[in-house]
Amino acid sequence: MKVLITGIDGYSGWPLALHLMGRNHDVVGLDNFVTRKRVKEVGSWSATPIPPWPKRQAAAEKKFGRLLKFHKGDMDDFAFVRRVLETERPDAIVHLAEQRSAPYSMIDVHHAVRTQADNLTGTLHLLYAMKEVVPEAHLVKMGTMGEYGTPNVDIPEGFFEIDYQGRSDRLPFPRQAGSWYHWSKVFDSGDVMFATKIWNLRSTDVMQGVLYGIRTPEITENALLTRFDFDETWGTALNRFVVEAILGLPITAYGKGDQIRGFIALEDSMQSLRLAIEHPAQAGEYRVFNQFDEAYSVNQLAELVKRVAEERGLHPVIEHPPNPRVEADQHYYHPIHEHLPALGYQRTRALEEVVRELFRDLTKFKRRLAAKRHVVMPTVQWRQADNARDVARRAPPADPGAVPGPSGGTSPPNLPSGPSTTPSSA
Amino acid sequence: MKVLITGIDGYSGWPLALHLMGRNHDVVGLDNFVTRKRVKEVGSWSATPIPPWPKRQAAAEKKFGRLLKFHKGDMDDFAFVRRVLETERPDAIVHLAEQRSAPYSMIDVHHAVRTQADNLTGTLHLLYAMKEVVPEAHLVKMGTMGEYGTPNVDIPEGFFEIDYQGRSDRLPFPRQAGSWYHWSKVFDSGDVMFATKIWNLRSTDVMQGVLYGIRTPEITENALLTRFDFDETWGTALNRFVVEAILGLPITAYGKGDQIRGFIALEDSMQSLRLAIEHPAQAGEYRVFNQFDEAYSVNQLAELVKRVAEERGLHPVIEHPPNPRVEADQHYYHPIHEHLPALGYQRTRALEEVVRELFRDLTKFKRRLAAKRHVVMPTVQWRQADNARDVARRAPPADPGAVPGPSGGTSPPNLPSGPSTTPSSA
Repeated sequence: MKVLITGIDGYSGWPLALHLMGRNHDVVGLDNFVTRKRVKEVGSWSATPIPPWPKRQAAAEKKFGRLLKFHKGDMDDFAFVRRVLETERPDAIVHLAEQRSAPYSMIDVHHAVRTQADNLTGTLHLLYAMKEVVPEAHLVKMGTMGEYGTPNVDIPEGFFEIDYQGRSDRLPFPRQAGSWYHWSKVFDSGDVMFATKIWNLRSTDVMQGVLYGIRTPEITENALLTRFDFDETWGTALNRFVVEAILGLPITAYGKGDQIRGFIALEDSMQSLRLAIEHPAQAGEYRVFNQFDEAYSVNQLAELVKRVAEERGLHPVIEHPPNPRVEADQHYYHPIHEHLPALGYQRTRALEEVVRELFRDLTKFKRRLAAKRHVVMPTVQWRQADNARDVARRAPPADPGAVPGPSGGTSPPNLPSGPSTTPSSA
Repeated sequence: MKVLITGIDGYSGWPLALHLMGRNHDVVGLDNFVTRKRVKEVGSWSATPIPPWPKRQAAAEKKFGRLLKFHKGDMDDFAFVRRVLETERPDAIVHLAEQRSAPYSMIDVHHAVRTQADNLTGTLHLLYAMKEVVPEAHLVKMGTMGEYGTPNVDIPEGFFEIDYQGRSDRLPFPRQAGSWYHWSKVFDSGDVMFATKIWNLRSTDVMQGVLYGIRTPEITENALLTRFDFDETWGTALNRFVVEAILGLPITAYGKGDQIRGFIALEDSMQSLRLAIEHPAQAGEYRVFNQFDEAYSVNQLAELVKRVAEERGLHPVIEHPPNPRVEADQHYYHPIHEHLPALGYQRTRALEEVVRELFRDLTKFKRRLAAKRHVVMPTVQWRQADNARDVARRAPPADPGAVPGPSGGTSPPNLPSGPSTTPSSA
């Protein structure tokens, strides 16, 4: 099959490209590289050095002996989106090209507006271009389990049958998101559901849990690495905890730490997306997958990271800074996930084993972590309207070439092997 | 109380200003006059000639002997929104400044994006400015009953208590909107609910039914008239039916005509909004009002209009063109509306009496209706991605000064009394 991946330069877009190429699918990508810019904007970088795009592309083509076509451009430009579909006529489109950070969306009014307006605009452009050019193609749209919030009832896969006041219906499950970013995904879900209905499209809306890990079997050399973000804006709680442990910082479990979320390994997310692609929705079908394996509390993550750190001779303490977010401290959490197993999905990676792997891999990039230790602790407060000054005060966006390594100089950090990082790496 | 009305130049913004001034509230307005431009864009105009803003403002100030302050500007400009709040420090803000036409949002991809991105951006700007400048003020946000769609169960006011899989919760009622415009209101509801929660704001989200009528007791002269839109893009079904009957066109009840919606008279909507303003939400409270009086099917409206037309010696036929929208033909419809009556709301206007009034009033503007008879019949098709060419082919946006009246000349149509219309009237 021919698969277009929007946001192919991102954390999951890139390993998805490799995974699909390894399965003999034709992959086409598009990206505008804005995540690289936005991570710089908050003064951070990826722990893993990410080569400039042409090097990534060449490395993938070399590994698989297949073409990896690419279109540089912005989903905000409808003519561009339409032109890509006209040129490529993909069978499936995996739409990952969105602003994906909750704290980034909460920095201030402008980040809120950009997150919601850009995400919504890109999705609408894609839906219209699909309707006009490839109405038979299958859209796999990345959403988030965070759309549902933490209701006091089980969370079904998108829809539920209810009885209310003596009558019954099958209705979309109510959404209660927890950041402007998460709401942007709720809005996308509405637009994708509606477009599918009026235009008879095929769509799968993926309510994905939090991803963990940076390895997939196809990532066999440094030029094929995917990004690993660990700052407070772009890193997940687990990513920050591992990095905090490596850097000798306290592990910062926000609030009481009893908040529970669903998780899935990067590699298993790739398996899930491939299964969705290989088993497309029917014409006119809008289906929802809850894409996660297991739910963990923040404290469970913190304790797991602490335990694995101690195996390695580290001695992190767990701290509980006031929760910068507004979310339920203690809550019921039981989402259903049956659609993917019905397509043959089987979990392959356990959290603890991936955390061990993360410690091994990231220790090699310790100098890159240390150079950004000042952007790991929380700054962006949900209850505050303007966090921009605090973000800038904490960590003025730095010229990566000027960040001193442990030697105090400006030489790039050592890589475990392969090509050295360049100033343009992200 | 001091009340800021965003979108004060619009169909309901203007009579709300008059109603509140008549009740001794201080009224401040803002508008960018974009509705006037957009109605021209589709080749139409208001049946009632609307004077340029300075004349409206002067007429209102003269009538009530009170100042009507005004700020011209765009909600898309955060600095402007913030500056208005800093200057005025209102007690309540009624947010009506949004693109309000479903067919307009369905014209093509650009109208879809503009509708959703602009509506969402204006609301976010207002929420942030409130949080920073007047966190104690009360936001009355105009939504629509169309957010809910037509579920097979009763529609509660925003939230419902449910039992699901043996557990229970109070959850937002699921939204299933029927156009990009209606979805934009769903998105606003999410953002207002979330901002209220994280910033402890006060908000009332008004799920309003379809408005009907152009008279309120405060509209005592032509300079105080509100707009009456009747083209396929900006007019409601009822408005189009009345105009079709007056012009000797068939009454066009889309599809089978069994689609049911909730309705409320303009004057009773003003009463409702005033009650919301005078009984503000508590700090941290996000409350939802289903603001309508009675539900009617499209056929009921068509038959009522036909009956009243016949009383006046007209003989319209009812036709059923294919439904350009995608909506349930036949469905259950039972929304609850208890919150407003609990504040003392009492319906004052019956639909039939308002329809008679509309016939009387609009007949005086028959030449303005006749000049735009070509934009009354449906063009914008929900199932089609690009309707822009059809809209332009049907009715190239005309220079209103050049539209011939019944005399074949270019003189402005006669008004029943008061100042004559000008080329800049909308």
